[in-house]
Amino acid sequence: MDARRISILGVGLLGGSIGLACRSRIRDCEIIGYGHRKQTLETARQMGAIHRIAENPQEAVKDSEIVVLCTPVSSLSRLIAEIAPAVAPGAVVTDVGSTKQSVVAAGEMGIPARAHFVGSHPMAGSEKRGVQFARADLFEKALCILTPTGRTSRAGLSAIEKFWQSLGMRTIQMAPDQHDRYLAEVSHLPHAVAAALVSMAEPGSLDVAGNGFLDLTRIAGGDGGLWRDILLDNRENVCASIAQLKESLSGLEKMLRAGDETGLKHWLDQAAARRQAMLDRSR
Amino acid sequence: MDARRISILGVGLLGGSIGLACRSRIRDCEIIGYGHRKQTLETARQMGAIHRIAENPQEAVKDSEIVVLCTPVSSLSRLIAEIAPAVAPGAVVTDVGSTKQSVVAAGEMGIPARAHFVGSHPMAGSEKRGVQFARADLFEKALCILTPTGRTSRAGLSAIEKFWQSLGMRTIQMAPDQHDRYLAEVSHLPHAVAAALVSMAEPGSLDVAGNGFLDLTRIAGGDGGLWRDILLDNRENVCASIAQLKESLSGLEKMLRAGDETGLKHWLDQAAARRQAMLDRSR
Repeated sequence: MDARRISILGVGLLGGSIGLACRSRIRDCEIIGYGHRKQTLETARQMGAIHRIAENPQEAVKDSEIVVLCTPVSSLSRLIAEIAPAVAPGAVVTDVGSTKQSVVAAGEMGIPARAHFVGSHPMAGSEKRGVQFARADLFEKALCILTPTGRTSRAGLSAIEKFWQSLGMRTIQMAPDQHDRYLAEVSHLPHAVAAALVSMAEPGSLDVAGNGFLDLTRIAGGDGGLWRDILLDNRENVCASIAQLKESLSGLEKMLRAGDETGLKHWLDQAAARRQAMLDRSR
Repeated sequence: MDARRISILGVGLLGGSIGLACRSRIRDCEIIGYGHRKQTLETARQMGAIHRIAENPQEAVKDSEIVVLCTPVSSLSRLIAEIAPAVAPGAVVTDVGSTKQSVVAAGEMGIPARAHFVGSHPMAGSEKRGVQFARADLFEKALCILTPTGRTSRAGLSAIEKFWQSLGMRTIQMAPDQHDRYLAEVSHLPHAVAAALVSMAEPGSLDVAGNGFLDLTRIAGGDGGLWRDILLDNRENVCASIAQLKESLSGLEKMLRAGDETGLKHWLDQAAARRQAMLDRSR
């Protein structure tokens, strides 16, 4: 794809990786970076993740065809309001937030009609943070969920789809509310459960925990502030998933108390089979 | 260490790896293998995991200084009764089961006074099964929990401790009931939770699940029959841990409903810190 100017607001692991990926995959692009910390922006420029540092959000977006918001979910509404007066006609604004309903609502409300807003959730990253861990290949073959609504323009959607695909991503589309329900099940609740398992274990237990436990709780190693915002923003779905998990645990308890060997084996086998099917599909 | 003869009963991933590790690390040893499936025993011999195949459990153990029981937890009582008449004077019998209270009770009851029983739980393995995945280095630097009781002989404990250390393991000791309580927290409940998360997710959710979910649910890919036996054998502790997790999830729900940013951040941060401390200790 050709996009002369791309703005990245918030240049951490994701923003920095987008910059590096754009430079290695999109011809003749100019990447403009903006963020709160001068030092981070300087590092990003030295790494080649951005060409130029903007002084403020308006300056960052004013001449760009594509604007990617990479700041935490909790600050997106404010940022959208800040850039709204400055976005160029025909520009497409997207974000990389892990929750979509509130962000898409803010984007559709805030970005003026001369431009487009399309929500994105590129499912790439790591428990590491900071631009110093940015990698040009972070997005390769990973999945990006686009969350159009009835108000999304076809031109904007198509541009954003091409943008992520040009960075090597597979894209799918779903409604923001469906995204948030799905992600509660396979990301937000699992994160909370990992934190709960680590929190409740006795110190002696943690001393004898094996690699299985470390794998299982890897996502609990993420940034507390970031995850607080995600869980709170998606609280309705997370609470619904908590209720479902508690029910599932009660069912297990019953099988254990009853010594139900058949039921237990069936339950464990079908979980293993579902996971295997996931693995097979992801290959 | 020097042990002329070592018997391995049950030659799968663990039994086979013990055989390979013994051959590469213990001088002049002879490994006798026994198991239900002739084909598996033949493969083990061809791989060099055992020197000789015994026709039955008694023949397998009769001249050995060390006997390692590697069959599933559910069959250990029967196996102990079978070998009891044949164990040599001074022999040390151990096992590799993931639960210890019932196994150690069966071992102490069944193994005659002329020999010794000491429970072991070598914390090594993988979700793979079968002797074809056996590796001589499976135990290197991993932890082995020994579970002596008031009835355990010092000679037997010392021999088994040296045995696992000679295969490259770190060893620690704790009472069988403490082992089972700890393992419920960091292995058995986490396994059950992984299965529950996979089971409850909508098919569409699984399609968009990222690597975090795959890591988190890796242990749910294990063998259903094996895990059914572990969960049932340790059901009291597992049920206690389920109750604790449900309470922890209720606490999270309250924080989410109340929009308690401070409490949520604190809870997530301390989980991340506890996990980081675990990682630091394990290095």
